[in-house]
Amino acid sequence: MAINYPNGKKFIPQKELPKKNKKKDFSFSNRGKTLEDELNETNEYYLQMGLAVIHKKPVPVQIVKVEYPSRSAAVIREAYFRTPSTTDYNGVWNGRYIDFEAKETENKTSFPLKNIHDHQIHHMSQVVKQQGMAFMIIRFSSLQRYFIMHFEELEVFWDRMVAGGRKSIPLQEIEETAIEVVPGAFPRLDFLPALQQLQMKHT
Amino acid sequence: MAINYPNGKKFIPQKELPKKNKKKDFSFSNRGKTLEDELNETNEYYLQMGLAVIHKKPVPVQIVKVEYPSRSAAVIREAYFRTPSTTDYNGVWNGRYIDFEAKETENKTSFPLKNIHDHQIHHMSQVVKQQGMAFMIIRFSSLQRYFIMHFEELEVFWDRMVAGGRKSIPLQEIEETAIEVVPGAFPRLDFLPALQQLQMKHT
Repeated sequence: MAINYPNGKKFIPQKELPKKNKKKDFSFSNRGKTLEDELNETNEYYLQMGLAVIHKKPVPVQIVKVEYPSRSAAVIREAYFRTPSTTDYNGVWNGRYIDFEAKETENKTSFPLKNIHDHQIHHMSQVVKQQGMAFMIIRFSSLQRYFIMHFEELEVFWDRMVAGGRKSIPLQEIEETAIEVVPGAFPRLDFLPALQQLQMKHT
Repeated sequence: MAINYPNGKKFIPQKELPKKNKKKDFSFSNRGKTLEDELNETNEYYLQMGLAVIHKKPVPVQIVKVEYPSRSAAVIREAYFRTPSTTDYNGVWNGRYIDFEAKETENKTSFPLKNIHDHQIHHMSQVVKQQGMAFMIIRFSSLQRYFIMHFEELEVFWDRMVAGGRKSIPLQEIEETAIEVVPGAFPRLDFLPALQQLQMKHT
């Protein structure tokens, strides 16, 4: 079976799974949650508390065929995944535009740069030129460690790869250049304090 | 035939129309262009010139069924339109977060407020609390007139309606409270100078 979702992962429409399929044990701990789940919860918390307005952008799809059955909702019958032209998350916090991509890896010693696309790097560089804050949130899933790396740091590693160097960022270099966020109970991934630090470092 | 697209209009996947269906006469003039077309062109121009980074968000869809045919792209076979939880456009300009909804009307004397949803008003108020710029771009299509109205003005008319008053904003009140943008050849709808004015007025 060919897998054609742009980022190489099969798309699983989680909200649509019948409840019996959900592993109940996982709802108490944070195991089994994706980084996206954790960020959505955190962003929802920020929204409720009036701390930040951050949303994940919808998955971009090219719609080809729509049916309009009478007396019920329009049904999309043919559509394709499109490559996003931006990062996945953006919003406003404390007057600042923030924009980020969130990526997780099972790897324990480095973060593979193939997880990021060219056009996302380009987008983040445009954001920084407009004085927005652009960064990447990295989760090392096996280690349960989270890092926030400003685009200006990420760009150095990206350029090194483009120049023929390493295709991944070693954990040690991430520890040296990014800000670690220690996960908590609620909100799971309280990353705003890290943004305060980023702001001081990168104006 | 029932029409079930959230904003009451049938969804037309324009990019997919075969070329022969496109009215060639309209490609020279700006007639026949939707407000969305005009804004996408303008935003693309701003992006190329490094003046602002503004994107339209993808249409949110709830994906239910995806087929993965071998050797070809994944096909979405069942999906539904979801109500967006935010406005359609956001981005960064000159260090400021900007966020807006764009609406057009064929009406010649007033703008019907039914074009706006509750949750969009709520979203814009959250943005303004975070010191972002939130506004609405209104096109009076028959008059070829364009206005930019800051959320704080829009909110007054919205609250008046909620309190049982007018369900639309008369053109005259729009002329008094919003900034008119005179359309040009290229970019079609140069709205950044109006934002400069908005900024001075609404800090």
